[in-house]
Amino acid sequence: MRVFIAGIDGYLGWPLAQHLTARGHEVAGMDMFLRRQWVEEVGGQSAIPVYPMEERLKAFEEHFGKPLNFRKGDLLDYAFLKEYLAEFQPDAIVHLGEMPSAPYSMIDQAHTVYTQHNNVIGSLNILWAMKEVCPDAHLVKLGTMGEYGTPNVPVPEGFFEIEYRGRKDVLPFPRQAGSFYHWSKVHDSGNTMFACRIWGLRSTDIMQGVVFGTQIDAMGDDPRLRSRLDFDQCFGTAVNRFCCQAVIGHPLTLYGLGGQTRGFLPLRDSMQCLTIALENPAEPGEYRVFNQFEEYYTIEELALKVQQAGADIGLDVEIHHYDNPRKEMEKHYFHADREHLINLGYQPTHDVLAELRIMLNDLLPHRERILAKQDVLVPDIRWDGSRRRSTIIDEQLSTVS
Amino acid sequence: MRVFIAGIDGYLGWPLAQHLTARGHEVAGMDMFLRRQWVEEVGGQSAIPVYPMEERLKAFEEHFGKPLNFRKGDLLDYAFLKEYLAEFQPDAIVHLGEMPSAPYSMIDQAHTVYTQHNNVIGSLNILWAMKEVCPDAHLVKLGTMGEYGTPNVPVPEGFFEIEYRGRKDVLPFPRQAGSFYHWSKVHDSGNTMFACRIWGLRSTDIMQGVVFGTQIDAMGDDPRLRSRLDFDQCFGTAVNRFCCQAVIGHPLTLYGLGGQTRGFLPLRDSMQCLTIALENPAEPGEYRVFNQFEEYYTIEELALKVQQAGADIGLDVEIHHYDNPRKEMEKHYFHADREHLINLGYQPTHDVLAELRIMLNDLLPHRERILAKQDVLVPDIRWDGSRRRSTIIDEQLSTVS
Repeated sequence: MRVFIAGIDGYLGWPLAQHLTARGHEVAGMDMFLRRQWVEEVGGQSAIPVYPMEERLKAFEEHFGKPLNFRKGDLLDYAFLKEYLAEFQPDAIVHLGEMPSAPYSMIDQAHTVYTQHNNVIGSLNILWAMKEVCPDAHLVKLGTMGEYGTPNVPVPEGFFEIEYRGRKDVLPFPRQAGSFYHWSKVHDSGNTMFACRIWGLRSTDIMQGVVFGTQIDAMGDDPRLRSRLDFDQCFGTAVNRFCCQAVIGHPLTLYGLGGQTRGFLPLRDSMQCLTIALENPAEPGEYRVFNQFEEYYTIEELALKVQQAGADIGLDVEIHHYDNPRKEMEKHYFHADREHLINLGYQPTHDVLAELRIMLNDLLPHRERILAKQDVLVPDIRWDGSRRRSTIIDEQLSTVS
Repeated sequence: MRVFIAGIDGYLGWPLAQHLTARGHEVAGMDMFLRRQWVEEVGGQSAIPVYPMEERLKAFEEHFGKPLNFRKGDLLDYAFLKEYLAEFQPDAIVHLGEMPSAPYSMIDQAHTVYTQHNNVIGSLNILWAMKEVCPDAHLVKLGTMGEYGTPNVPVPEGFFEIEYRGRKDVLPFPRQAGSFYHWSKVHDSGNTMFACRIWGLRSTDIMQGVVFGTQIDAMGDDPRLRSRLDFDQCFGTAVNRFCCQAVIGHPLTLYGLGGQTRGFLPLRDSMQCLTIALENPAEPGEYRVFNQFEEYYTIEELALKVQQAGADIGLDVEIHHYDNPRKEMEKHYFHADREHLINLGYQPTHDVLAELRIMLNDLLPHRERILAKQDVLVPDIRWDGSRRRSTIIDEQLSTVS
């Protein structure tokens, strides 16, 4: 299968290119290296060294025995995108080319506007280019479980059948996102659903949980083939950040009560799920939604697992509650379906502790890189538009409860 | 009350400035005159002459005895917007500054991107500027009934209480918009709801039906105070276009079966409803949704009313079915609530025939202006991205039924 990856230099895109190539697929991709810029802008760096693209491409060719079809370019450059897709004629497009950080989108007016412009217009360009030059391709678009927010009812996969005032319909499940970034993904979902309806495009919209991990099997040992792993407040996601904190002896930073429940999945599972979606495409005109996560956990449960994995390899890991810079419910009902991928053969990892031990061992050699940028471990971007570094609130919480 | 109008030169903005001033409110506003450009771009012109802004402002001052606080500027220019709002310190902002045409948004990639960029970013700028310089102001934002699409269940006002798999919640009603323009308004609604939640802003989001009409009481007889009235396929809405067709003897252009049901309201009612929303503001942190329409009709019912009103004043009006350039259901269930405005005192016009006769009489003196641009009366912008002029399909329909 010919697979085009937008955002092929990123945390998911780079391993996905390898995973799909190892499975015998023909891969091409584009990237503007914006993720590298954003992480630098917020004062972070990848804990695992990221090599220049020329080095990555050289290692790719050595390891897989053929060059990777890559071009530097921006999804906002419609002419570039359309020409590349017209030439490559993909069977599938995986859209990973978006600005993925909630805090980054909340910094100020300029960052909110940048986020929604970049994500919404880039995604519209993909839809229009598909319609114009490869209308039979299957779009696998990365949404996020965060689109749903935290409703007090179970979260289905995209659509639900309801009875309301005596009548029935199957409707899109309402979205209640929690940041301007998450809303940009909601906007993309609406635009994609509509493009499938009017143009007969086909799409699988993946509501992905929070991914963590440093390894997939296809990578081998070449450091040039490793994916990035961010730990700053913007681009480091919860578990990845916890593991980086654990290896330098920094307390794990729980936001507020830590009862926030989210879907999570290891990087390996993300690769497995995306591959299943690609190899079992939607029908022409079909817009389907897959919820993609291994299991849902509270943030505190995950912190405790990182603490346990740390203890297993001799690390003493502390956990503290910090005042929450976000505006979100810190304890709430949560239940979400993820039957579609299971029905297509997804086998969840389940052994999260083993995965965490691998991560900690992978990160230990890079302690100095994390220590050098440890200022970005504790958040200061607040949902009220201000900047103030969070402080430990364990005592206040214990007097409350 | 100090009211700021974004889009004050437009079809609704210009009469609203007069209506509010006549009621004793202090009005200021901005406009970039983009509507004038868009209509020219698609080959149309306003049936009722639109004067240059300097002329409009002169007439305003003569009629109302005080100048209108106006500045030319773009909502995409954040610095300009923020400074203007900081100076004026509005109690309320009415956001009419968006590209309002479904067909225009469907022309090609460039027009889709233009529409969503203009509308989403302009609206984000208003939210951020409010947060930064006038957080207590009340945002009255114009959405559209078209955000809801045509679900098979009744449409509540923004939110509905549901029971799903044994649990209950009050959730945003799902949106299923029918053009990239309508989706831009859905995106705005999501962003606005979120800004109210995290920043404590207050907003009334008006899901407005299709407005028609040439007159409001506050205007008086000065032609410089009249509002525009477009009849082209992009910026002319159904009833306005039918009336322009009627006065030049062009058949009314029903799309497909004509069973599409939509909420409609006369321009007078739109002014009345917006005023009610302004004078009964939302609470701090509240995001409320009003459905705003006089009644819902099928497009065919309205065409028959225009035919009747024409007959009343001696015009012989034909109605034809044209092949539908849009992708939409041409017969469907439709029921929508509009209790919030009624509860606050909205008195619907009801005598639509009388309103249509006024419109036809207002348009008769401008027959030459419509005849000069009659090429734009029959649509050619199709939802599949092509351009092909619709043709009369009465015979196919009669053989089907």
